Amino acid sequence: MSTVITLTTDFGYKDPFVGEMKGVMLSITPRVLPVDITHAIDPQDIQEGAFLIGGSYRYFPKGSIHVVVVDPGVGSERRAIIVEAGGHCFVGPDNGVFSAVLSSPESARVIHITEEKYVLSLKSPTFQGRDVFAPVSAWLSRGIAPEEFGPRVGDPVRIELPQPLREAKQIIGEVIHIDRFGNAITNIRRSDLEVLGGAWHAGLKGMRVPLAVHYAQAEEGALYCLVNSSGHLEFFVNRGDAAGKYGIRKGDPVVLHLN
Amino acid sequence: MSTVITLTTDFGYKDPFVGEMKGVMLSITPRVLPVDITHAIDPQDIQEGAFLIGGSYRYFPKGSIHVVVVDPGVGSERRAIIVEAGGHCFVGPDNGVFSAVLSSPESARVIHITEEKYVLSLKSPTFQGRDVFAPVSAWLSRGIAPEEFGPRVGDPVRIELPQPLREAKQIIGEVIHIDRFGNAITNIRRSDLEVLGGAWHAGLKGMRVPLAVHYAQAEEGALYCLVNSSGHLEFFVNRGDAAGKYGIRKGDPVVLHLN
Amino acid sequence: MSTVITLTTDFGYKDPFVGEMKGVMLSITPRVLPVDITHAIDPQDIQEGAFLIGGSYRYFPKGSIHVVVVDPGVGSERRAIIVEAGGHCFVGPDNGVFSAVLSSPESARVIHITEEKYVLSLKSPTFQGRDVFAPVSAWLSRGIAPEEFGPRVGDPVRIELPQPLREAKQIIGEVIHIDRFGNAITNIRRSDLEVLGGAWHAGLKGMRVPLAVHYAQAEEGALYCLVNSSGHLEFFVNRGDAAGKYGIRKGDPVVLHLN
Repeated sequence: MSTVITLTTDFGYKDPFVGEMKGVMLSITPRVLPVDITHAIDPQDIQEGAFLIGGSYRYFPKGSIHVVVVDPGVGSERRAIIVEAGGHCFVGPDNGVFSAVLSSPESARVIHITEEKYVLSLKSPTFQGRDVFAPVSAWLSRGIAPEEFGPRVGDPVRIELPQPLREAKQIIGEVIHIDRFGNAITNIRRSDLEVLGGAWHAGLKGMRVPLAVHYAQAEEGALYCLVNSSGHLEFFVNRGDAAGKYGIRKGDPVVLHLN
Repeated sequence: MSTVITLTTDFGYKDPFVGEMKGVMLSITPRVLPVDITHAIDPQDIQEGAFLIGGSYRYFPKGSIHVVVVDPGVGSERRAIIVEAGGHCFVGPDNGVFSAVLSSPESARVIHITEEKYVLSLKSPTFQGRDVFAPVSAWLSRGIAPEEFGPRVGDPVRIELPQPLREAKQIIGEVIHIDRFGNAITNIRRSDLEVLGGAWHAGLKGMRVPLAVHYAQAEEGALYCLVNSSGHLEFFVNRGDAAGKYGIRKGDPVVLHLN
Repeated sequence: MSTVITLTTDFGYKDPFVGEMKGVMLSITPRVLPVDITHAIDPQDIQEGAFLIGGSYRYFPKGSIHVVVVDPGVGSERRAIIVEAGGHCFVGPDNGVFSAVLSSPESARVIHITEEKYVLSLKSPTFQGRDVFAPVSAWLSRGIAPEEFGPRVGDPVRIELPQPLREAKQIIGEVIHIDRFGNAITNIRRSDLEVLGGAWHAGLKGMRVPLAVHYAQAEEGALYCLVNSSGHLEFFVNRGDAAGKYGIRKGDPVVLHLN
């Protein structure tokens, strides 16, 4: 059976970058199934990449390999790494893009990729996705153990993912992603809401926003919020574009008040 | 060998929704090959989804499973269904998106998905694509019979797909899709043209439009029509963007007159 | 094991064209793995398609089949062809889109597809991607020899790919592609630079542009150039959009001067 290798990048859809990465993998072994997560990460937005792979990898089978390339420092001294966590393997740059994976409760092991025989060129100045991360993921799928690729890393780069501020009677968070439908996803999670205890209401851009359970329940045209399928508080307009209609953007503050 | 599972959604390409659906499928069985049809259906445009899957599924091998998610009512009381027709299986919401499939001459059987053991959560408020339709499609590919998922449905939702009006000496239809090249596809089919009998000319936005057999045959820059690869009357500009140049939009009326 | 069939087209991502091509392939044999290179070639830009497939195919395993559909003349008298070169097979229209492949040093054999039994319709007026190129690629993967599809072609169409002009102390080239990040790729290759000999500087839009080895090395905001991962001279802004910021477009002239 084939091993699943997922790809998450900021490479977009007009260039051959992603196709060439898959070609390199399939040249090393035909026993992989490449699966795209997305290639539309905002260019060089490491935080968006970290948030996204941290939420998505759990839906793939254990033993999957996840290649993540959001890599403004490509060609510089930043390390190329392998991360093992929760029965999955991750391959990409050591720039913080695996911060959410590394902070998961399951113990993570990190390896610095230094072994030249498993890559096209460790000195590729501009496209390590194709020259390093793709071949390493394919060799991993063939059963080469992570420690064969280089030494252990004790201090992988971690970036601060924006956390909501929990106060006595309120939670202050922010919008971290606008999705394809114009829904505004925040960094406030179900577990934060449980800490708040009683009934609350949400404030966004000076509006008091009511809570719904699902989209179709909300009055059309009006702004509502709900806890979405990834467990995050999300603002939406039923059959509409919330971000477009109400001018909501990444970084906008969100406050939950106890009633 | 792997079973083909196609995906047709309005999820776009920037979010991880489609990747997570494939991850759920591959977690249930490695013996599926997910194939994208498109994820760029206009948000919540059930009619566009119905038109598109109705035309495309026949090009896939018998035994394929087609997951279609255009689902403004997700989380509400609308049913999740399996449709069997013409040797293919379809999985998605019971909101009319399978109207073209259900109207095919081959007898269709429809099942209401109620069996909780084959889904992540039947009460998913916002993302049944991942939590219901993806796992059901994977279990179908493993050979679970449709009737194991729930009871038979006698009254699946059907929406009216716009039909051309056939009169004595004319046919009145409309533009139903603008494609990537700016070609304007209508709801008038080859069989309508045969009913018309003799030679005819087409009228669109006050213009009298000549008929061609293929694109390269038409004078560059001018508006022509032809019967396209899906059997529909289509307006085009050779090496140009017909919709952009002549301001053609979905819903514009089209009239064919006998000469 | 499955044979890799790559797809490179100008079909975009909103229509079901690419999905239907994969359906046709998989109906002929389940033993293929379709891999997208890109579907965002500028509509009918044969030169861009030729440049792109010429650079990318080498990253795929020998024995791969590459379907390329940039086909403004579909339905006209232009031939459908198979090209064998360098251990790879190519299928598409005979309009010059294989010019880069045909000019490779490895000998190429070209076949005119005339055998009706391997296609859905050789007379498809608008969609030979689905009706001719997809089924031919699938039959090739099943081991049907290229000569079974029709007679040898001695004069495949070649288009002039823009070559840089090498003079005594300078090289004059041009921008041939703007990538997703706004990097401007030129037709000047590493081998041209070696001919130039000594140290040089680049001129673009009246600016004197310094050379870097990798992106992260360059001062942010300023225009630099480097030799990129495909061996071409490329202009870039570190963590920025060079084409957007400096108004660079396809076709802009580039001059390299010996210092």
